[in-house]
Amino acid sequence: MTSTDVVLVERAKVGNGVVATVILNRPEKLNALNKEMWQRVGEVFQELDQDEDLRCIVLRGAGDKAVGPGADISEFATMRNNSEQATEYGGLMHASMQAIRDCRHPVIARIQGLCVGGAMELALMCDMRICGAGSKFGVPVNKLGLVMAYPEVEALVGLVGPAVALEILYEARVFDAVEAKDKGLVNRVVPDEEVDAAVASTVEKICAGAPLVNRWHKKFVYKVAAGAELTAEDQAEGFACFDTQDFQEGVMAFMAKHKPDFKGN
Amino acid sequence: MTSTDVVLVERAKVGNGVVATVILNRPEKLNALNKEMWQRVGEVFQELDQDEDLRCIVLRGAGDKAVGPGADISEFATMRNNSEQATEYGGLMHASMQAIRDCRHPVIARIQGLCVGGAMELALMCDMRICGAGSKFGVPVNKLGLVMAYPEVEALVGLVGPAVALEILYEARVFDAVEAKDKGLVNRVVPDEEVDAAVASTVEKICAGAPLVNRWHKKFVYKVAAGAELTAEDQAEGFACFDTQDFQEGVMAFMAKHKPDFKGN
Amino acid sequence: MTSTDVVLVERAKVGNGVVATVILNRPEKLNALNKEMWQRVGEVFQELDQDEDLRCIVLRGAGDKAVGPGADISEFATMRNNSEQATEYGGLMHASMQAIRDCRHPVIARIQGLCVGGAMELALMCDMRICGAGSKFGVPVNKLGLVMAYPEVEALVGLVGPAVALEILYEARVFDAVEAKDKGLVNRVVPDEEVDAAVASTVEKICAGAPLVNRWHKKFVYKVAAGAELTAEDQAEGFACFDTQDFQEGVMAFMAKHKPDFKGN
Repeated sequence: MTSTDVVLVERAKVGNGVVATVILNRPEKLNALNKEMWQRVGEVFQELDQDEDLRCIVLRGAGDKAVGPGADISEFATMRNNSEQATEYGGLMHASMQAIRDCRHPVIARIQGLCVGGAMELALMCDMRICGAGSKFGVPVNKLGLVMAYPEVEALVGLVGPAVALEILYEARVFDAVEAKDKGLVNRVVPDEEVDAAVASTVEKICAGAPLVNRWHKKFVYKVAAGAELTAEDQAEGFACFDTQDFQEGVMAFMAKHKPDFKGN
Repeated sequence: MTSTDVVLVERAKVGNGVVATVILNRPEKLNALNKEMWQRVGEVFQELDQDEDLRCIVLRGAGDKAVGPGADISEFATMRNNSEQATEYGGLMHASMQAIRDCRHPVIARIQGLCVGGAMELALMCDMRICGAGSKFGVPVNKLGLVMAYPEVEALVGLVGPAVALEILYEARVFDAVEAKDKGLVNRVVPDEEVDAAVASTVEKICAGAPLVNRWHKKFVYKVAAGAELTAEDQAEGFACFDTQDFQEGVMAFMAKHKPDFKGN
Repeated sequence: MTSTDVVLVERAKVGNGVVATVILNRPEKLNALNKEMWQRVGEVFQELDQDEDLRCIVLRGAGDKAVGPGADISEFATMRNNSEQATEYGGLMHASMQAIRDCRHPVIARIQGLCVGGAMELALMCDMRICGAGSKFGVPVNKLGLVMAYPEVEALVGLVGPAVALEILYEARVFDAVEAKDKGLVNRVVPDEEVDAAVASTVEKICAGAPLVNRWHKKFVYKVAAGAELTAEDQAEGFACFDTQDFQEGVMAFMAKHKPDFKGN
C-alpha cells in the first residue's frame, strides 16, 4: 500500500491513443473524499494533462455503489474545525477541482450509485456526465451548517443556472437520475447495467475525432462560458487547426469516404 | 383601511424560526399591480431583510385565482403616459424587484392562476418558483406597445436564456404551467390543490437547514450568476461558516444521527 | 443567373408590415454553404436591417431536404487550406453570422431536414428556431480535424451551456429534433408537414406586436446575454417606448378591447 492507492489510474489503448480511467478508490468508505484523495486527484490530473498520447479521461468511483457520498466527515474535527483550517483544506479541494477543468483532455464522469456532496462537485468539473438510472445526487450541506464555497458554486451555477442551484442548496434533497437530467446536471441517463457501454461509446467517439480539435474545443468552450475577454491571439487560435496534419488527413479521408487516421499533430 | 393593506405580511413559527408570507392583496382586481403595491413590496422586503429570526419568505397573491394579471392599466393615462413618468414609475418597480433579490432570506414564489406581466416579473426575482398545474404565464407587452426594461430583461434572460426569452416576448402568448417548466421558468409544477403543501414542504426543508448557510448560498449564487469579480474577501466568506456554532451543531448532530438544532449563529 | 441567386429574398405583406424570407439557395448541393453564399447572407441581412417596413425575417434552405449540410468541402483545398486562408474565410463567415444578430428585426430559423455544421451555426444566430420532427442537427467537425472558432462557440454555448456544447462537439453525432429540443437548440418541434404553418403562426404573432417593441426586445436581450455593461443611456432606452404613438395605440386598443393597429412609430 502506498499513498497513491486512494486514487488509481488505469490506461487502455483505444485506436491511435490512450484513455485513462481515474478511480476514486476507497470502496470501504464508499469512496468518501479525504484530504489525501483531494490532493491525489489534483496531482493525477496535472500529470495526465502533460500526456501527449492521451485522448480522453474517465473519472469514476471504485465499484458500482458510488462515485462518493461526499467529504469524509470524520476529518472535520481535526482538519476542518474552523475557518482557518477550512481555508487551507478548501484551497486544496479547489485546486484539484480546477486541475480537472484545466486538464486539456476531454474528461467524462462515469456515475453510478451515490454522487453526493464533494463527489458531485468533482463530477461537475468534468466536461460531460453519464450516469446510471439508479444514481443519486445532491448537496445537502445546509444540514451540516456548511456552505459551498465560491469555486463550487461557480461550477454548479454554470451548469444549472441560479434557480436550480438554489433549489438544490435550499432543499438539500438527495434526488434521482431522472431529476438530475431534468435539472441539466447530467448529459445522459442509461440503465445501470449499460453505464459502462454508454461511457465506452462516448469515449470511442472522442477517440475517433482529431485530438487537438477536442482539446481546442474544451479550451474555447470554458473561456467563452467564463465570459473571458478574448484577445486577438485567442481569436487566431480558432484557425490554428488549418495548419495541422490532422486537418489535411480529415479532409482527405472525408473526400475519399474512409475513416481518418488522426495522429494528434 | 390603511395604505399598507395592498400588501399583507403574515408570520408563522416553523421550528426555531419564523416564515413570512407576503401577499399581493387586491383580490377585486386579481391583484393587478398599482404604484402603491410596487412601493409597498419594496418596503416590505427591506423590512424583512432586517429580521434576524426569519428563515424563509413566501410571495403570493391573495386568493387562488392569480398572483396577478400584470400592471394596473388604468394607471397608465395618469402615471405612465410618457417616458418621463414611466422612468420614475419604472425606477420604483425596479427598486422593489431588486429588494426581493437583495433580501438575504430565501424567497419562494407560490404561484396559482394568472402570473402574467408584472406579476411574473416579481416571481422571477424570487429564488424558486412552485406553481399549480392551472397556472398561466406570459409577458404579452408587445400588444400594448410596451417593452420590458433592462432590469426585467436581465431577470428573464438570467433564468431562461436569450432564445426562450425572445420567444416569450415576440410571441406574446399566455402559456400553461407545463410549458413554463419546460422553459425553465418554474422549479416545480404540482396539481393546483397541492400547491400549498408543496410550498410548505420546501419551506420546511429550508427551515431545517442552517439559516446562515441558506443566506450565504443566496448571496454566492447571485454574485456568481451576475459574473461579479470576486475579491479575496468574497472568497474568504466561503469558509466563514466553519466558525459558526451551527456548523459545530451540524457536524455533531450528523455524527450522533439526530436532527440538528440550528440557531442561526 | 446572377451572383445573388445563391441567396434569395422573398417578401410578403402581413398586416401593416412586410415579412422577408431569406433562402439559402443551392438545392443541387443541399444548400451547402460556399464562400459566395456566406458573403451574400451578410449583405442581405445588412440590407434588410435598413428596411423600416420589415416586421420579421425567416431564414430557411431551398426545398424541404435541408437548411444545409454545412460547408462546401470542395472549397477547402483552394480557399481554406491553411490558417491564413481560413482566417480570411472565417472573418467573412463570422461577419455574416454577426449581421443576423445585429439585424434589428426578429429573425426566425425555419428548419426542415439536415441542419448541420455551418447551417446549424447560421440557425444559432437567429432569435428562434422552429423545426420539423425529421430534422437532423450536429457539428461533426472533429472528424474533419476542424474546430468551431470562438464566434461560433459563443453562439453555441450561449444557447445550450458548456456541458451540452462539449457533448455535441466531442461526440460529433448527428442527432434528431427531439434531442435538439431537449438540448435547448430549438424552440419548437412540429410534424414536418406543419413546419410552415408553425412558422407562419409565430410570424403572425410577431407582426401583431408593436414593431419597435420587438426590435427593442431583441437589442435588450442580446445586450444582457452578452453581459454588456449598461450605460445610463441604455437604461433610459427601456422607457423610450412610452413616447411612441404605438404605445398610445396599444393602451387605447386594450381599453377598448379591439386589436391594436401598430404603425411602427
